[in-house]
Amino acid sequence: MHELGAGIVVIGNEILSGKTVDSNSAFLARELRQLGVTLKRIAVIPDDLDDIATTVREFHQKFDLVFTSGGVGPTHDDITIEGISRGLGCRVVRHPLLEKKIHEYLNGKTPNSAHLKMAEIPEGAELLIHDELRFPTIKIENIYILPGIPEILQQKFHALKERFAVDPYFLKIIYSNEVESAIASYLNETLEVYPDLMLGSYPKIGNSEYRVKLTLESKNKDYVERAFAHLLQLLPTGCVVKTEG
Amino acid sequence: MHELGAGIVVIGNEILSGKTVDSNSAFLARELRQLGVTLKRIAVIPDDLDDIATTVREFHQKFDLVFTSGGVGPTHDDITIEGISRGLGCRVVRHPLLEKKIHEYLNGKTPNSAHLKMAEIPEGAELLIHDELRFPTIKIENIYILPGIPEILQQKFHALKERFAVDPYFLKIIYSNEVESAIASYLNETLEVYPDLMLGSYPKIGNSEYRVKLTLESKNKDYVERAFAHLLQLLPTGCVVKTEG
Repeated sequence: MHELGAGIVVIGNEILSGKTVDSNSAFLARELRQLGVTLKRIAVIPDDLDDIATTVREFHQKFDLVFTSGGVGPTHDDITIEGISRGLGCRVVRHPLLEKKIHEYLNGKTPNSAHLKMAEIPEGAELLIHDELRFPTIKIENIYILPGIPEILQQKFHALKERFAVDPYFLKIIYSNEVESAIASYLNETLEVYPDLMLGSYPKIGNSEYRVKLTLESKNKDYVERAFAHLLQLLPTGCVVKTEG
Repeated sequence: MHELGAGIVVIGNEILSGKTVDSNSAFLARELRQLGVTLKRIAVIPDDLDDIATTVREFHQKFDLVFTSGGVGPTHDDITIEGISRGLGCRVVRHPLLEKKIHEYLNGKTPNSAHLKMAEIPEGAELLIHDELRFPTIKIENIYILPGIPEILQQKFHALKERFAVDPYFLKIIYSNEVESAIASYLNETLEVYPDLMLGSYPKIGNSEYRVKLTLESKNKDYVERAFAHLLQLLPTGCVVKTEG
């Protein structure tokens, strides 16, 4: 089975200039993991047409799924639609359904050019309608165009996510009170026997309970359980504080 | 004056798999901004030799300053030094000073191969000694190799940062209780008169105080103050909740 690989492009000067902390990529990382989709790369880039065009084209070619976050509002710095269109070599056009939604939203008031900017899509894009949400999600090729505002991005992703569900990872965790350098050889020995195991080792400073968190993962439940038992047997007595999973 | 542009490469499967939230890039973004360094791109990539090599080489060529975070510990998944060496086409060697530091740290105990891994550097790298910290920072070409553990990364960056100080940005903020689409035309008008202004517009949902935060920035204090006055004059009466800066 082909394993889905995803990339995230976060678009926004406010993140690169330290004014806003990006929480969208961490949210998407957790959600994709739960769905069994492997996140391969996150790029945070400025509100720059060429940069958006180049980065989105590269991600579009490299990954099965691409999510963009940010740059889809009504102001001068909202240039994601134009950037993606340039990257894919298509025109920017207004979508009649989005125009209609904007008219509904304004409740009779005449839309200005800033409002109408939000009806723009890359030509050929499709609209994914979410019954429970006011506005649809714009999708072109393998690219899902999401807003930067975390609440709306999350609503849209939850409405979309069923389509990405593949097969999940199985995770076991070991907490060690020995430091990394003291147990590194046991990790290497485990990897020799279980080369396909995804094994992470994360030291924690200033924690009274444990010094290193070890994560063992695989899409094969039996494999990760055998690797877990193997590593537990290798680790020195008393070194394991607790386990999870 | 040439403006320093920086890139950050965050290395770690734990971030892409949603197990850990990266706080290092947000910390560095804020710090670099205060120093007047423009952050151009953040990439979050997996613990993969080719990916590290390719990404670091690209950043090394494109940006004045490159910071890497993560992958410098003693375990199997700590391959940043090897990846950077591959990217720059140099060998991995042990540095005698780092070996000495590790011996000191172990206080007479014999180092194992996991310990000694932490003495490795890309050949030709220099060590930046911080009097107040136990271990130096490894620098090769324009690349500063920082650890993934936030506390240590922050200590090292604070010890280094004087060398990056250039000239700061000046920031003014306007909080508006009108929505973005209602004020977008005033932003565009201001940008026509002040094309070099960095103007950000950030809607906030569910905030009783304001609906949009507008940030005006420039390295020229006078320029940002004139643009600020210009925009204030354009905005509808009563729309400005407060200003800062």
